[in-house]
Amino acid sequence: MNSHVKLDGLEVGYDIPALPGMAEAEIQTPCLVLDLDALERNIKKMGDYARAHGMRHRVHGKMHKSVDVALLQERLGGSCGVCCQKVSEAEVFARGGIKDVLVSNQVRDPAKIDRLARIPKFGARTIVCVDDLANVADLSAAAQKHGTTIECLVEIDCGAGRCGVKSAEEALEIAKEISASVGLKFAGIQAYQGAMQHMDNYEDRKAKIDLAVAQVKEAVDLLAANGLTCDIVGGGGTGSYYFESTSGVYNELQCGSYAFMDADYGRILDKDGKRIDQGEWENALFILTSVMSHVKEDRAIVDAGLKAQSVDSGLPVVYGRTDVKYIKCSDEHGVVEDPDNVLKVNDKLKLVPGHCDPTCNVHDWYVGLRGGKVEVVWPVSARGKAY
Amino acid sequence: MNSHVKLDGLEVGYDIPALPGMAEAEIQTPCLVLDLDALERNIKKMGDYARAHGMRHRVHGKMHKSVDVALLQERLGGSCGVCCQKVSEAEVFARGGIKDVLVSNQVRDPAKIDRLARIPKFGARTIVCVDDLANVADLSAAAQKHGTTIECLVEIDCGAGRCGVKSAEEALEIAKEISASVGLKFAGIQAYQGAMQHMDNYEDRKAKIDLAVAQVKEAVDLLAANGLTCDIVGGGGTGSYYFESTSGVYNELQCGSYAFMDADYGRILDKDGKRIDQGEWENALFILTSVMSHVKEDRAIVDAGLKAQSVDSGLPVVYGRTDVKYIKCSDEHGVVEDPDNVLKVNDKLKLVPGHCDPTCNVHDWYVGLRGGKVEVVWPVSARGKAY
Repeated sequence: MNSHVKLDGLEVGYDIPALPGMAEAEIQTPCLVLDLDALERNIKKMGDYARAHGMRHRVHGKMHKSVDVALLQERLGGSCGVCCQKVSEAEVFARGGIKDVLVSNQVRDPAKIDRLARIPKFGARTIVCVDDLANVADLSAAAQKHGTTIECLVEIDCGAGRCGVKSAEEALEIAKEISASVGLKFAGIQAYQGAMQHMDNYEDRKAKIDLAVAQVKEAVDLLAANGLTCDIVGGGGTGSYYFESTSGVYNELQCGSYAFMDADYGRILDKDGKRIDQGEWENALFILTSVMSHVKEDRAIVDAGLKAQSVDSGLPVVYGRTDVKYIKCSDEHGVVEDPDNVLKVNDKLKLVPGHCDPTCNVHDWYVGLRGGKVEVVWPVSARGKAY
Repeated sequence: MNSHVKLDGLEVGYDIPALPGMAEAEIQTPCLVLDLDALERNIKKMGDYARAHGMRHRVHGKMHKSVDVALLQERLGGSCGVCCQKVSEAEVFARGGIKDVLVSNQVRDPAKIDRLARIPKFGARTIVCVDDLANVADLSAAAQKHGTTIECLVEIDCGAGRCGVKSAEEALEIAKEISASVGLKFAGIQAYQGAMQHMDNYEDRKAKIDLAVAQVKEAVDLLAANGLTCDIVGGGGTGSYYFESTSGVYNELQCGSYAFMDADYGRILDKDGKRIDQGEWENALFILTSVMSHVKEDRAIVDAGLKAQSVDSGLPVVYGRTDVKYIKCSDEHGVVEDPDNVLKVNDKLKLVPGHCDPTCNVHDWYVGLRGGKVEVVWPVSARGKAY
């Protein structure tokens, strides 16, 4: 898939939308672009915050799926490692040089457990979540088979309603089993409250996390009373990290979206009632799109539709413009309302995607911009790694 | 990106979810699977229909983005070529051996026009849509530069509300200009009514297409009166092909979804009020997913979420089961209601995706099954080719 058509001096083939050194206007659209200055500021800011609050930050790699961004987060933000959701993602990050990788999810399929047990051979500390006693023996057998160590967090469902045990007693039972199993190491607790991250109101989010913190504290205390120390108590996202950081219970954050931002997260409000994309975090990720037809005066058709983004959390927002609005999309078309007929064919717009994670997952490349020039083109290293 | 981990006899790396010869149970999930028998029956059926009605069938490659499926449609269904929406897709199909490729869309960016003008060098007849007089000179210049011929269809907006001119007079003006331009050849009309394909009711769909047919006939007649013959009058989708086929105006169909089916198309009704996935077309495409957690008795968590599909047209449907229901999803999790607690960890389910096109676009591979065994593993050749 790496063939490349040399285009009479314009070296853009069908495998890459841009090359370093190009002007922004030459980029083939639709594609993802990163404002590198904004990205670096976001990464540094979260790194400084975590350090100032005595927290480790294990950045969520499932958001960007990029080894390059993860390494930037390590270098500029002092992150301690990555978390991700799939064994195939962990393989990519470990192979790419990340030395501490948490699969913040259950791994149950025998072949996947076998693959997981091999990841330490890439040189990475390898951690996984467990919510079922029956999983422990399988993980232990695989680690022994490969002569590796898998560290295990017991996952507590503190409100996301997906995986995870509900009670401290269940957590203790699983933790004891992990601790007694050859090839495994009990490493602590995973407790991510995913369902509240996108609630607009700060106090509503706080109320949910207060409940989670109490639940996690009960488990940590019960484990300690039974001689089991949690090296990691992990959780926290872009909509909640300040709560976990000051909880006295959590010691690792797992924020992802703060680095890129998106329209859905941008709408939530901070403690002063201000949108978090109006000061707390900058939009660093955009879908660059071009006008490809403008036959009707009041609507421009752009080249970014469902194949260039996920609309599960709403339509994208045209960045920095109030005169035009993205109102509809189909597979390869976006309809932009242009009441004053200001757009022309080949004009480019920057769209802030509704939801960054699944939007990044449909693209092969990040085109990194600085000062109007393409500085880097990074692969979305773990794109499509869902298995 | 082609590294591969040899897994002690189980040769599944992070780059491919299955290998030919494997049992269905060994496939790494989530991934796309094709029921090859059903796929072949769908392809033959539409081929037979088109032949019987004296229509050519230019299959829509934007749906599957697969050279292998397109070649199967040529071999078993007698298709005359493919249409697709992007220059990058056309490059993939032409390179893959498809000899007749229509970009059923506008191409306006100078670099893209240059790339389009090179496609005939791959050995493929190359056709594009035009809806703006200003586009013609650019296409002509590029074709002359590369010594190739680009065939042009004038696009008529017959109800989709996206690209395309509204009147026969505008169509004539553009057609004349194409006809007079060196390097270009006027090839006919593109008139796809996209907006009505998913209307449930047969008569509602028919009413929309009747309007479209009248509009297209007016243009064809005006062109003919001016000495311009339409080699191609193209349009028609899975929800409408019987109308275009019997219109006396259209001569090329552009169906895509019939080959795979999906939940959203499946719900529309035929002339007898029967769902089209209950006889007319078979479900040939599924997302294979595994239960990864079942801590709560009444709900199973599966490994296919937003990274394994597009939910723009609704959630997926669990195939062949009425006892369990996919009710919710987040990035990497799907929640399946399991009131009778019948599912077990590692059980596999087949999901019929809500919308096949953008779902195929998030996957790298099709795993083709026959008789419970993996027979082929095909790349989604034009995956991510949006530019």
